[in-house]
Amino acid sequence: MTTVGVLRETAGRERRVALTPDGVARLRKQEISALVETGAGARAWFEDIGYHGAGAVVGDRDRVYAESDVLLCLHPPDDVAACRPGQLLIGLLNPLGNVELMQQLATAGVTAISLDLLPRTLSRAQAMDALTSQANVAGYKAALLAAEAYSGFFPMLMTAAGTTRPAQVLVLGAGVAGLQAIATARRLGALVTGYDVREAARADIASTGATVLGGPGPAKDGDGGYARELTEDEQIAQQSALDEAIPRFDVIITTAQVPGGPAPRLVSENALSKMRPGSVVIDLASTVDGGNVEGSIPDTRTVTDAGVTIIGAAGLASTVPGAASTAYARNALALLTHLMPRGEVVLDLDDEIQAAVVVTHGGRVVNARVRDRKEIRS
Amino acid sequence: MTTVGVLRETAGRERRVALTPDGVARLRKQEISALVETGAGARAWFEDIGYHGAGAVVGDRDRVYAESDVLLCLHPPDDVAACRPGQLLIGLLNPLGNVELMQQLATAGVTAISLDLLPRTLSRAQAMDALTSQANVAGYKAALLAAEAYSGFFPMLMTAAGTTRPAQVLVLGAGVAGLQAIATARRLGALVTGYDVREAARADIASTGATVLGGPGPAKDGDGGYARELTEDEQIAQQSALDEAIPRFDVIITTAQVPGGPAPRLVSENALSKMRPGSVVIDLASTVDGGNVEGSIPDTRTVTDAGVTIIGAAGLASTVPGAASTAYARNALALLTHLMPRGEVVLDLDDEIQAAVVVTHGGRVVNARVRDRKEIRS
Repeated sequence: MTTVGVLRETAGRERRVALTPDGVARLRKQEISALVETGAGARAWFEDIGYHGAGAVVGDRDRVYAESDVLLCLHPPDDVAACRPGQLLIGLLNPLGNVELMQQLATAGVTAISLDLLPRTLSRAQAMDALTSQANVAGYKAALLAAEAYSGFFPMLMTAAGTTRPAQVLVLGAGVAGLQAIATARRLGALVTGYDVREAARADIASTGATVLGGPGPAKDGDGGYARELTEDEQIAQQSALDEAIPRFDVIITTAQVPGGPAPRLVSENALSKMRPGSVVIDLASTVDGGNVEGSIPDTRTVTDAGVTIIGAAGLASTVPGAASTAYARNALALLTHLMPRGEVVLDLDDEIQAAVVVTHGGRVVNARVRDRKEIRS
Repeated sequence: MTTVGVLRETAGRERRVALTPDGVARLRKQEISALVETGAGARAWFEDIGYHGAGAVVGDRDRVYAESDVLLCLHPPDDVAACRPGQLLIGLLNPLGNVELMQQLATAGVTAISLDLLPRTLSRAQAMDALTSQANVAGYKAALLAAEAYSGFFPMLMTAAGTTRPAQVLVLGAGVAGLQAIATARRLGALVTGYDVREAARADIASTGATVLGGPGPAKDGDGGYARELTEDEQIAQQSALDEAIPRFDVIITTAQVPGGPAPRLVSENALSKMRPGSVVIDLASTVDGGNVEGSIPDTRTVTDAGVTIIGAAGLASTVPGAASTAYARNALALLTHLMPRGEVVLDLDDEIQAAVVVTHGGRVVNARVRDRKEIRS
């Protein structure tokens, strides 16, 4: 019987776990064993006793490495050298940013499978789409964080002493995270405006009932439904339109990413300086190398001289660990079911999904996108 | 021309201010001068320049004490001895808990007026009802805090990988704060149940669309629309009903107060021990002497051995300082307009509102409720 092992995440603030007790029960129904590392779900409030009750064996990390045919994780484990030849490692491995690690896994004979390479436009892969499920959680949490940090009410409230105006919220980037941030801010009663460079995303904004912010003419969508990088002229026009619009808003939530490139700078220091004191800006693209908002710092709240609170909020999915882990586990299970139609792993690199997500196999980097990236680097 | 002075709050974490720039503008329309202490609104993001623009003089604290006919505050200032004879001091002075301070103000010849003595059932006083307006803010923020701390989603979300169930939220105490917590949790998509010992409050819960939790037969309402303390038998029946119900919920928000008495203990250690790991309990009645939830500590997050996060959350209104200050300022203005129908203070202790809120005047404690409390103490 195939054994799926679940590793405790080793990244510092990570609270998610790749499989939930409910996921274990589903595996067991497919005649697949589950071996869960002690404490793997603790930070997401999934206790060892819950995994045990669902039919998993709970054991220490060495045992999980030693006895599993398939290893599930979110981030690449920091002791990935413990993987055995022939083992499958499934996670959000960020292979395009981790080319050396992929080569290491290939050399070790590990079959590395990365959910972040899943083709997002393929409808039969949607149930496996972990980037989407995690972005959905992040967008929800971004709106909550914004409401929590904002000095006023999100909804319009009518009281005996008068009426309060609703908060004006602008969401920049209307992918999965942006659309969920829009939906959640609207649930809370804010007046929400959305902005995206992609024509399809503008239609999505309108479909939520939010206002669509005008700006430079819609750009064609990039590959796979993502935004492409704008030309220099387009960037200048966009910046000018955003600089003018941003100071009208109480709350800005930015979620813009360009795959393979740095996150676009959308909220300039100039725009920030004109916002009202007490305004809040949440940057979901915040990294140590920058983000959508000038001056945002990951996992940090800063207040500008003008009284604007900037929250660098990358990795928000991990802060709603129950919801995020549940969604991720469902994605991983959908992939496992695809890889193991009869309880045994059947690799088939002619399959469109597998061809996309399998990074290393048989001692080699087999994924074309990762190979291309490797050649550019070397 | 009468001058209304606005003091910067001196209590440690207090971020509110008793009058906003908008409030200044309204005073000016009534031919009343405003003198605002430097930095009074800074922590609520109301800048000195905003007060100045609305027509206020901005000056240092000594000047506010020296030149104001009426002083506005929220909490009693820590340098209240600086008040001059004949001056009015208007705030949430908590006179029933601060009898010595009231005597001190009386002796100093200050007319102390406390908004927390306002009769809440008097409809023409509703616009002045600061306890209501601040409880409204606190209830809103309590629901946000709960959503932010909870490990899952509040709404039911349908995605390609499956559907998440909505959070089950229980709100104990359905006064103003409780009803606003119910409304906000419902906005976010949670399934909300409310509980109150008062029959009228149970009807209020039902009117929001939330479920009403059964329990011991409705108690008669206490004075002024507040709950009265339960008898011992009633308390035992209530505790048993709550202990049984609480573990079914993911989130509990407690807002129960009994005026003049300690907050009732509603969530026992026994009930907490049976809640699911990852559940969240927010205690709005948390004080150093206890609260609605066993083990809650003011302004502190604790996690029980069973994985339940308890947040002691008294004073939440101050954490939404823009909304709370705006509402308070409107209440204060309504009272000022009542006290100064033609721009000059006209004290009339035969007026029902003034009789309720004026605590000291002409060198004496004139308020019957405060005098009664004083006699019990001495």
